[in-house]
Amino acid sequence: MTKIGDSENNITTMKALVFHGANNLALEDRPKPKIIHATDAIVRIATTTICGTDLHILKGDVPTITAGRILGHEGVGMIEEIGTNVSGFHKGDKVLISLITSCGGCSFCKKGMYSHCRNGGWLLGNSIDGTQAEYVRIPFADTGLYLLPPDVDDEAVVMLSCILPTGLECGTMNGQVKPGDIVAIVGAGPVGLAVLLTAQLYSPAGIVMIDLDDNRLEIARLFGATQVVNSSDGKAAERVMALTQSAGVDVAIEAVGLSATFNICQAIIAPGGHIANVGVHGKSVELHLERLWASNITLTTRLVDAGTTPLLLKMVQSGRLDAKKLVSHRFELSEIMKAYDTFANAAKEHALKVVIRNTNVNGRNLKENS
Amino acid sequence: MTKIGDSENNITTMKALVFHGANNLALEDRPKPKIIHATDAIVRIATTTICGTDLHILKGDVPTITAGRILGHEGVGMIEEIGTNVSGFHKGDKVLISLITSCGGCSFCKKGMYSHCRNGGWLLGNSIDGTQAEYVRIPFADTGLYLLPPDVDDEAVVMLSCILPTGLECGTMNGQVKPGDIVAIVGAGPVGLAVLLTAQLYSPAGIVMIDLDDNRLEIARLFGATQVVNSSDGKAAERVMALTQSAGVDVAIEAVGLSATFNICQAIIAPGGHIANVGVHGKSVELHLERLWASNITLTTRLVDAGTTPLLLKMVQSGRLDAKKLVSHRFELSEIMKAYDTFANAAKEHALKVVIRNTNVNGRNLKENS
Amino acid sequence: MTKIGDSENNITTMKALVFHGANNLALEDRPKPKIIHATDAIVRIATTTICGTDLHILKGDVPTITAGRILGHEGVGMIEEIGTNVSGFHKGDKVLISLITSCGGCSFCKKGMYSHCRNGGWLLGNSIDGTQAEYVRIPFADTGLYLLPPDVDDEAVVMLSCILPTGLECGTMNGQVKPGDIVAIVGAGPVGLAVLLTAQLYSPAGIVMIDLDDNRLEIARLFGATQVVNSSDGKAAERVMALTQSAGVDVAIEAVGLSATFNICQAIIAPGGHIANVGVHGKSVELHLERLWASNITLTTRLVDAGTTPLLLKMVQSGRLDAKKLVSHRFELSEIMKAYDTFANAAKEHALKVVIRNTNVNGRNLKENS
Amino acid sequence: MTKIGDSENNITTMKALVFHGANNLALEDRPKPKIIHATDAIVRIATTTICGTDLHILKGDVPTITAGRILGHEGVGMIEEIGTNVSGFHKGDKVLISLITSCGGCSFCKKGMYSHCRNGGWLLGNSIDGTQAEYVRIPFADTGLYLLPPDVDDEAVVMLSCILPTGLECGTMNGQVKPGDIVAIVGAGPVGLAVLLTAQLYSPAGIVMIDLDDNRLEIARLFGATQVVNSSDGKAAERVMALTQSAGVDVAIEAVGLSATFNICQAIIAPGGHIANVGVHGKSVELHLERLWASNITLTTRLVDAGTTPLLLKMVQSGRLDAKKLVSHRFELSEIMKAYDTFANAAKEHALKVVIRNTNVNGRNLKENS
Repeated sequence: MTKIGDSENNITTMKALVFHGANNLALEDRPKPKIIHATDAIVRIATTTICGTDLHILKGDVPTITAGRILGHEGVGMIEEIGTNVSGFHKGDKVLISLITSCGGCSFCKKGMYSHCRNGGWLLGNSIDGTQAEYVRIPFADTGLYLLPPDVDDEAVVMLSCILPTGLECGTMNGQVKPGDIVAIVGAGPVGLAVLLTAQLYSPAGIVMIDLDDNRLEIARLFGATQVVNSSDGKAAERVMALTQSAGVDVAIEAVGLSATFNICQAIIAPGGHIANVGVHGKSVELHLERLWASNITLTTRLVDAGTTPLLLKMVQSGRLDAKKLVSHRFELSEIMKAYDTFANAAKEHALKVVIRNTNVNGRNLKENS
Repeated sequence: MTKIGDSENNITTMKALVFHGANNLALEDRPKPKIIHATDAIVRIATTTICGTDLHILKGDVPTITAGRILGHEGVGMIEEIGTNVSGFHKGDKVLISLITSCGGCSFCKKGMYSHCRNGGWLLGNSIDGTQAEYVRIPFADTGLYLLPPDVDDEAVVMLSCILPTGLECGTMNGQVKPGDIVAIVGAGPVGLAVLLTAQLYSPAGIVMIDLDDNRLEIARLFGATQVVNSSDGKAAERVMALTQSAGVDVAIEAVGLSATFNICQAIIAPGGHIANVGVHGKSVELHLERLWASNITLTTRLVDAGTTPLLLKMVQSGRLDAKKLVSHRFELSEIMKAYDTFANAAKEHALKVVIRNTNVNGRNLKENS
Repeated sequence: MTKIGDSENNITTMKALVFHGANNLALEDRPKPKIIHATDAIVRIATTTICGTDLHILKGDVPTITAGRILGHEGVGMIEEIGTNVSGFHKGDKVLISLITSCGGCSFCKKGMYSHCRNGGWLLGNSIDGTQAEYVRIPFADTGLYLLPPDVDDEAVVMLSCILPTGLECGTMNGQVKPGDIVAIVGAGPVGLAVLLTAQLYSPAGIVMIDLDDNRLEIARLFGATQVVNSSDGKAAERVMALTQSAGVDVAIEAVGLSATFNICQAIIAPGGHIANVGVHGKSVELHLERLWASNITLTTRLVDAGTTPLLLKMVQSGRLDAKKLVSHRFELSEIMKAYDTFANAAKEHALKVVIRNTNVNGRNLKENS
Repeated sequence: MTKIGDSENNITTMKALVFHGANNLALEDRPKPKIIHATDAIVRIATTTICGTDLHILKGDVPTITAGRILGHEGVGMIEEIGTNVSGFHKGDKVLISLITSCGGCSFCKKGMYSHCRNGGWLLGNSIDGTQAEYVRIPFADTGLYLLPPDVDDEAVVMLSCILPTGLECGTMNGQVKPGDIVAIVGAGPVGLAVLLTAQLYSPAGIVMIDLDDNRLEIARLFGATQVVNSSDGKAAERVMALTQSAGVDVAIEAVGLSATFNICQAIIAPGGHIANVGVHGKSVELHLERLWASNITLTTRLVDAGTTPLLLKMVQSGRLDAKKLVSHRFELSEIMKAYDTFANAAKEHALKVVIRNTNVNGRNLKENS
């Protein structure tokens, strides 16, 4: 007689979203991953989501991604198997997956720059297979996973894999938002909204949200923006200067990745202010040093290190950060192609983050979170 | 019978270097300045010097300077007269003049951003008459002057009016130089050398100096550079990357103000590194965000605030900073036109800072410092 | 015929609360103050309040206060007269008075340590006459006053003279409260509550309030404490350790000034944590270095510098900080003796801050704020 | 025929210094350690040294040390064997051993507080066998070892296992020494001298060294102290106040661990200053909050985390830090009992750090470093 556990262990294939070159994705059967190193863990995915970066990959803009790669770097799931050298986790633990893989020992890890780990960095859904699948192998599991209480809400917590640490670290913290500041955020997409949510942890006196889309600006207002500016007429900078009595803003956060949006930041920053770049840029930008050289400004760039995930977990668990409100749509893993369509047409679909649940795949019903 | 003191008080004219438009300077007689506000002081100049900015003014590049202005924002001298509301100084005190005028009470002053003081900033030799004269009026004397012991060396101390605070604040401190760092300084002119001298206060493991001029690089070596790179073949960045085993530098300091030199900084900065712009730029530059967005770099700009002058005074007085070695040439005030020629042809003249002494002008021999 | 303005200028006496030695206060007639230095201003007080320090003075515990001194260092009012060297204010301006007098130019002021200003510090109601009067002379008016919009609420803003900067600077900022932290505040009197209100600007995950008085703990809960601990059984430390699963707290803030309350802080601080002392101590305490030497803790002390008043003004004006809820009782200046009684019996009277309005004194009705 | 390599691998015993209770040490044969976890390494010790903490252990003052423990937490050696999960090292690598064992993944490690690592901390020569032996097992080898170039000087580098990171982190960095500061160091033993050497990396204007022993003060002067004060007459604090024209010192560093030396620090600290405790205290101290509550001081404690070892390695390798001058005496491992005697009578023997070389033990001649 076969026990259920045995039968699960015998499963050797799984569903996974595979990249086959530009504009070519497929949900297909792939071998279930196995432990390779003693520090690995195999996680059964319960909840994942799609990142703006996945859309860049889909367009063929990210040259490090080769055909055949399973995408995805965000996820919540359950430990299925651990390597002999994983000390912090056990089979059955509910875990959050960090987008960043880090060895914990290299010179970059010791500085907290996990994104540049000499033995890790952003690997999942990039140079190794990712989380948009039933199972994923997580290297350096002790540093790449976070233990979750069984009753935590997957949809809230999966926002801590990538988007909320990105907003907090690259935007809010690099921008040094502090009480009393006037903050401008250029771009009200999911990343800009993640900046908006996390900036409020530091109590700025005002947050001006700038975007082309009135619907997104309306959401920004609901999420806490004190003023919104539609930039479609090219006069956003003038309007922000008027709002600030020509003083400019203390912090300007670029959350788009284009020359035009970077220019708004340059035009509105007050002397002594901070420009924090969050957007992924495909081209160089013009930096107006002929004006800014004397303005005592600080400009930062950053690939998210995800070192703030524990802090964000505490904020979500204490009820002080409502991460879940970033989720606009929900899909089953079997519907992931539709989820990509929705997310790729975010403006039209009024989509923020789309969540993908792996509740009933291959005839099994996992429902870890029900 | 007339006493000398009386006769001095009766003097109403003085020699002063006056700007009469692009490429038009003259040493001429001007009225001796008088107290205007109760917080002013009149200082009799003993020692002054010429700044790279004065050369920009001379070329007509600084539109805020109008014809008729007495130039100069650096100086050491003696208090000749104080307003009724100056509490920290007395007639006869030996003082250092800060290039920055600050009210001490506005929001920028309270942040230590004296360069952006709402009632001050860089005024001397800019919007009010400056220090390349026998006398100068100093507004907000209590914050704009520093008391000096009588025996301090004028030539060392006059380097603290502008160039050493500039090197320290805009370069070394903004670059966050720390023990163990590898620092690159692009530009071995006086400002770059001021960065070099002050960077050593924080014990970096190595300092690479980059310039087109072998003579200046040789001086940089004498001043403490551990490596020098002549950039005239356009391969400076490659050479620095080779010197650092492709790791790049922790801190890159731009001390020229050109696109080409800024580009070297961008090309050699390590992930997590700091680019500190010191140079005065006349044009915008291209910022390679398509590469740097993921590099966790920090880029700063700054107009010197001169808040570090007291610290630098302590370092000079304790013998830990040899400020005087920045001085290459000495002139009398009567020879100031020649001093400008020498400084304007610095490469040919092997000039660093040129010092101007006011020892014997108008038949009087002041010799405060002899 | 005499105009009202003239008549007001002719007034030469005023009502003032005068200290005549321990436990001896009187509201009596005193000469109206006059401009002494060109940087002074005379302010007509509209609203003032009583500080815990005033109670210490009343007991005779503050030796710097001599008999005959007018007490009070908090206030909102209107500029009555300015010295010739006051540039930032005009007659008739509504202003907030800072408890700290600062020259803006000395070495302590330049570090932002205004409380230790060589020409100022805490002078009002201490070494010079204070604000519990109809008029007060404010030295260095440009740095000691803040311009207020006419419609701002006096009762909210007078909390920014002393108690809220104290809570923010000595407690919250010195304790380095940050998102995700667990903070304990020992003492739920007005100062502890000011810490509680300002700590929330940095979004800690939890705030534990500790006091002997259940009524004050209940107020703390209303003000945002997530847990409260009554320490009257001597087991507060054990209870906090239990609440934190023996981890201890990230920040412990002492807001009482006694050995017993300091001991609670020492006992509950987590490794790497911050103990911020706010309380005024009359005796030394025992510091358990035999245990703490290895705990990587940071312990701070501070006399409020009030450099954060502008930040707090922005927070109050943007509606993000409800300063007014610290006010529990209101009195006229003529009732100030009763106000002292109420404040001195705070536990019995359920008093927090008591506000004193100068609305109708000497037959005049000022009502600046009605 | 037996090859030498084979023969070495067959060795199963080694010489080791074993603690058998208070005042009872013996150099004896012990089994050679073996790999236990896949992340372990076995290091053959070439050079070790004795720490002040070892003397405390010897007296029986450290209750965590049980009889039978091999002492020592400092060392330089060669990798003899690595676990299957050690990725950064190979057999034969020359390595520096950190006194701190860290997992790299726990919440304390992620904050850089390796000393409080939940899976490590100070283990060597404490809860596991240490380095005063021919071989040692190093847990979490990837984070606990540093690769050394073959030609680096063992005696300089072994100072980076414990004493120089202690001086730098607990003293210099916690004290926030910066250019222009006046620093006082109380205690001129090896740890105080390590503070002295590392403080100079930040260019203070003056360093006052305080001790009871004129010989040590003379060494302090040679090592860079600008002033020395013999405290044997109980008037050290008065003398330091006189040296600073009653201003006090910016940084006071306690490097002894006694009430009397802590008191000197409290008495001489300037308002706004930093007291950094480095000494190991056996008893509580009296903290004068009745005076210090208003002084804006910061007091820190710290168990060395050794996160600065890479920085210190760069400083030693670049020639900017002469670590070797801390070494006063040299012994063979066979003479280690004599080394303890010398170090325990440091004042009489004029001993600083005593180095123990394992050059010729059991008939083998290792001479890795000759």
